[in-house]
Amino acid sequence: MKDVAARAGVGLKTVSRVVNGEPGVTPDTERRVQEAIDALGFRRNDSARVLRKGRTASIGLVLEDLADPFYGPLSRAVEEVARAHGALLINGSSAEDPDREQELVLALCARRVDGLVVIPAGDDHRYLEPEIKAGVATVFVDRPAGRIDADVVLSDSFGGARAGVAHLIAHGHRRIGFIGDQPRIHTAAERLRGYRAAMADAGLPVHDSWVSLGSTAPERVRAAADAILSGPEPVTAIFAGNNRVTVTVVRVLAGLDRSVALVGFDDIELADLLRPGVTVIAQDAAQLGRTAAERLFHRLDGAPGTPERIELGTRLITRGSGELPPAD
Amino acid sequence: MKDVAARAGVGLKTVSRVVNGEPGVTPDTERRVQEAIDALGFRRNDSARVLRKGRTASIGLVLEDLADPFYGPLSRAVEEVARAHGALLINGSSAEDPDREQELVLALCARRVDGLVVIPAGDDHRYLEPEIKAGVATVFVDRPAGRIDADVVLSDSFGGARAGVAHLIAHGHRRIGFIGDQPRIHTAAERLRGYRAAMADAGLPVHDSWVSLGSTAPERVRAAADAILSGPEPVTAIFAGNNRVTVTVVRVLAGLDRSVALVGFDDIELADLLRPGVTVIAQDAAQLGRTAAERLFHRLDGAPGTPERIELGTRLITRGSGELPPAD
Repeated sequence: MKDVAARAGVGLKTVSRVVNGEPGVTPDTERRVQEAIDALGFRRNDSARVLRKGRTASIGLVLEDLADPFYGPLSRAVEEVARAHGALLINGSSAEDPDREQELVLALCARRVDGLVVIPAGDDHRYLEPEIKAGVATVFVDRPAGRIDADVVLSDSFGGARAGVAHLIAHGHRRIGFIGDQPRIHTAAERLRGYRAAMADAGLPVHDSWVSLGSTAPERVRAAADAILSGPEPVTAIFAGNNRVTVTVVRVLAGLDRSVALVGFDDIELADLLRPGVTVIAQDAAQLGRTAAERLFHRLDGAPGTPERIELGTRLITRGSGELPPAD
Repeated sequence: MKDVAARAGVGLKTVSRVVNGEPGVTPDTERRVQEAIDALGFRRNDSARVLRKGRTASIGLVLEDLADPFYGPLSRAVEEVARAHGALLINGSSAEDPDREQELVLALCARRVDGLVVIPAGDDHRYLEPEIKAGVATVFVDRPAGRIDADVVLSDSFGGARAGVAHLIAHGHRRIGFIGDQPRIHTAAERLRGYRAAMADAGLPVHDSWVSLGSTAPERVRAAADAILSGPEPVTAIFAGNNRVTVTVVRVLAGLDRSVALVGFDDIELADLLRPGVTVIAQDAAQLGRTAAERLFHRLDGAPGTPERIELGTRLITRGSGELPPAD
């Protein structure tokens, strides 16, 4: 540790802070310490640690879908933090199935992970209470726990969606559609609430036929978009509830002979190169993962206090699709 | 199992084949059996299995980078196969660092996984010999093992790149650049070999300044593309060695005032909606993962025989960028 401190040009206490994920270190300092750790091959003595603390030096991450690009940077950030703490990351996905989430969480607990980062599929996590009492630290990310009190790190889905829809309204749209994920998913419900709030703020009605929630499978989203874009009161703009929805809506709009505005929640790769570029409400998936994992190790290191809710802001990125005027 | 067989309309032996990952079942039948299993909540009795076979019913997957979209479908496919076999997937990434790969592999072995699916970062896997002798089944995917004999499932990188470059030559190009990943990575070396073979097939010279291998970080790829596109003999077409390279090259080409043809290895999301659409050599990441995981369970179930190399074909998808004629 002395060598790491010397190489990074910081004090021993700072190295300890970085290794233990304690606050009060700037990102720049943290990076310098991390580089010194990598360069010197410094490894915390995990065996001693496990013996002393009764830990196995591993944490579990329960994702929703390994194939969704939103979870790539999030997983990677959790892994980087785990690695900085000398812990192995064990990882699995629930495929948005609450039973499978429970099965996976309990399987990980049975393998004696020290802690869990969970993107929940279900809305009742009382099954976790015995594990938490037994000392398994748990931090929820992206969506809150249901019926238990636990740390959660999430993006401001409500505020982000409200800002995105307000942006469309500011560009003259009055009839705006919302296509989102299944309503039982917290982020989907929050983003719908943000859409409704923005419409209400502007004194605009919301027709039932403008709102479609369900699976993000391309066929379902395509059918929803087709329905919202036809009928007696077709929308002139769409707010897409997440990156999977946005990708399909972009495809549908590319096939139309009129221009329809679009704002999507989540950034998507190559969004800037499409014509028009896709305007999005971006959330920082890596920062979500990093914050949740750091909170987890903070708890594992004995941080006291009641569970907290940490909400990260979102960012409107204008690229063209959200600034198109109404076609009629 | 009888209920599953009845529901899926197949025999008991077929259910057993699907559950044990044995060959001789059509994809359609496999899907029907899997749906019946999901519907009925059938679970193999893993405790008994572990006791009988000395297994822990978990497999490890060592990836290169959790955040690379190529690995999303691959991981998910491995997880689905593991799940069908009642096994938990434990997952981590090497970040393309051979030491980290070894550390992660041995940590997984210490946790007594039954088997490993490895996308190797290193080129010397003799460190795995004691584990393999001790009974840990190991299948390599995407890239072969180094200095040991092991099952491997990979795409035909050489043939795919050769076909992609031949496609550019067929559209009139004579000066074609190649931008790829680090040369010590097997797929990068194979794709470069394919590029050189196609150029040689057509009797075309390859100037050193047309070939650039290295990190896939956007800054590196951007500098490489800028260099290849300027100078005394600028190329009129580029072959991009993987999806990370392609994404940056697309950005560079979008900023040019002349048209440069592009074929990329790996498909990328939204490639069809860009103008021009991006012509690619697509490989099937999910099929790579599925094949490797099935091979692993096959070995775990005692399949005899020497290690095999399974090579999956690639597919040229023409969308416009690869069919542009030379600008001069």
